[in-house]
Amino acid sequence: MTVKAYGAHASDQPLVSMDITRREPGAHDVQIDIAFCGICHSDLHTVRAEWAGTLFPCVPGHEIVGRVAAIGDHVTSHKVGDLVGVGCMVDSCQHCADCEEGLENYCDNMVGTYNAPTADEPGWTMGGYAQQIVVHERYVLRIRHPEQDLAAVAPLLCAGITTYSPLRHWKVGPGSKVGVVGIGGLGHMGIKLAHAMGAHVVAFTTSESKRADAKALGADEVVVSRNADEMAAHTKSFDFILNTVAAPHDLDAFLVLLKRDGTMTLVGAPATSHPSPNVFNLIMKRRAIAGSMIGGIPETQEMLDFCAEHGIVADIELIRADEINAAYERMLKGDIKYRFVIDNATMAA
Amino acid sequence: MTVKAYGAHASDQPLVSMDITRREPGAHDVQIDIAFCGICHSDLHTVRAEWAGTLFPCVPGHEIVGRVAAIGDHVTSHKVGDLVGVGCMVDSCQHCADCEEGLENYCDNMVGTYNAPTADEPGWTMGGYAQQIVVHERYVLRIRHPEQDLAAVAPLLCAGITTYSPLRHWKVGPGSKVGVVGIGGLGHMGIKLAHAMGAHVVAFTTSESKRADAKALGADEVVVSRNADEMAAHTKSFDFILNTVAAPHDLDAFLVLLKRDGTMTLVGAPATSHPSPNVFNLIMKRRAIAGSMIGGIPETQEMLDFCAEHGIVADIELIRADEINAAYERMLKGDIKYRFVIDNATMAA
Ligand SMILES: [Zn+2]
Ligand SMILES: [Zn+2]
Ligand SMILES: [Zn+2]
Ligand SMILES: [Zn+2]
Repeated sequence: MTVKAYGAHASDQPLVSMDITRREPGAHDVQIDIAFCGICHSDLHTVRAEWAGTLFPCVPGHEIVGRVAAIGDHVTSHKVGDLVGVGCMVDSCQHCADCEEGLENYCDNMVGTYNAPTADEPGWTMGGYAQQIVVHERYVLRIRHPEQDLAAVAPLLCAGITTYSPLRHWKVGPGSKVGVVGIGGLGHMGIKLAHAMGAHVVAFTTSESKRADAKALGADEVVVSRNADEMAAHTKSFDFILNTVAAPHDLDAFLVLLKRDGTMTLVGAPATSHPSPNVFNLIMKRRAIAGSMIGGIPETQEMLDFCAEHGIVADIELIRADEINAAYERMLKGDIKYRFVIDNATMAA
Repeated sequence: MTVKAYGAHASDQPLVSMDITRREPGAHDVQIDIAFCGICHSDLHTVRAEWAGTLFPCVPGHEIVGRVAAIGDHVTSHKVGDLVGVGCMVDSCQHCADCEEGLENYCDNMVGTYNAPTADEPGWTMGGYAQQIVVHERYVLRIRHPEQDLAAVAPLLCAGITTYSPLRHWKVGPGSKVGVVGIGGLGHMGIKLAHAMGAHVVAFTTSESKRADAKALGADEVVVSRNADEMAAHTKSFDFILNTVAAPHDLDAFLVLLKRDGTMTLVGAPATSHPSPNVFNLIMKRRAIAGSMIGGIPETQEMLDFCAEHGIVADIELIRADEINAAYERMLKGDIKYRFVIDNATMAA
């Protein structure tokens, strides 16, 4: 079937309305009317071919929420009319150790929601900037938030799980002192989630102007990372630091703030390397630098349920489909608190 | 009391025989007749002031074994005549969280066995290149190896615990696939220990000539790291990699060999930075780069007991005190399998 979508025909072209094809739902497929789709920085990097391997036309979007329109014969986990979400992946091998442990995000054959090889036309996946999507039931999440929150739930499918997963994996909870570096799309979710998990949350920003905002998001303390005295006051005190900043920066400034056995986990990969961290800072207190990528399907469901229970959604600005290009420009300037979300109903026109 | 020692009067001077002062044993002190002392690369770096802060005269040595000559009134853990060892530290605050958990090595006030501030003359600690040493009983380890192994036990006090501690902390055991990078003083102990713990051990070396030696030490496989095909065959397969190489090198070549959730732990700090590791390699499989420094006192005792039980000692070359300077030159050329140990009886002359 043919549906309206927004995508780019080339890396130097703006996103425009286009028709794309979705497969007919198979026995295990869920067909979803997309209500809203969040805009992730990955969308922009992919559409502009800033990473290798973008295939055109490219329809991005992996923060998808909507309602089930139809299900295949064997679908048991979702029914027509359910509020559902789809995140960064739409398939994986389903039988490797990662898949069997519910960590499909680490499967070597994970299929991204856009720009990944698929048997469907045109040969690569097309994302959530579209009216509908068809996805294997395993990769479809149940949304238990009230329907009026639906647009603000969309970013949980990428920004939410990308921050929730490492916070849980490194056992953040009551009694933990947690740092969140960067207060953007990812960081603002990291602050909300760590706060809801009961941690003492310290937000790090380069900008004095974000101090009040970070507190409003749930930070117990805010540190302006350019202020050496403020930083020094937190030396050797953190159990865990979630670093959401993809721009190259001095990792050592944060490593020295970790306690013995503390970990700093990076969830953004810089286009050019960070300055090489000082190994001495790792050795002295048995500290670690780790990475984390999105999260598995079971933990994505757990995150959505946790957010529904705690009334957590993203802070968003809702836009029309024809405002996507302008939104990208504003994202590049950091002019968004904290996530753009597309009203996919505006694609019909 | 005055004892004979070997030390340097300046960074550009060779080590020579000198007299140093040891304190009279206090209530909790153990006075030890040093039989043997291993030579660690740290000794050389310190004596030559390659790290900041060397105080002269400098008597290095922190791989100390010998026999208890006298004990203070309140000493309960050791008695005269016991075979004992002293490693990299001779004191710590004894009440911080690290000390209370038996991780005195991470105490902010850990006192190194040499070149660390002390109330004793001349104001900084003097190490094991000496006839005797006086140490608080807490930092004195019991040796259960047969006495004829004593010289080869000495390197366990630094090289042994530095590799044992991370192998245990990252839960290496039967079923683990473990890499050991570098086959020197630290690496040769890492191979022996990981093998004895029941792991499948892969040794990495830059030198084809070390292949047979590594197998003899207990490696199940040996990979010449300059051989890209050999390296590629181990992609995504390691639970843990112990990296003992302090020279700057490409960490990514090893990171990509780790499984999901694998950790590479560095136990050597390079004088100049490693090339900055690729964050993508951390994110993709939730991998980590960590550091580890020596080990705590209880785990040092555990390591010594483990080694005694498994018949593990270092491979050593025993030298006279007047051969220390020549030994340093050979260490710089990598011309040692795998640890020089000084026969401290040769200091009396
Ligand atoms: Zn995303
Ligand atoms: Zn899989
Ligand atoms: Zn040492
Ligand atoms: Zn302490």
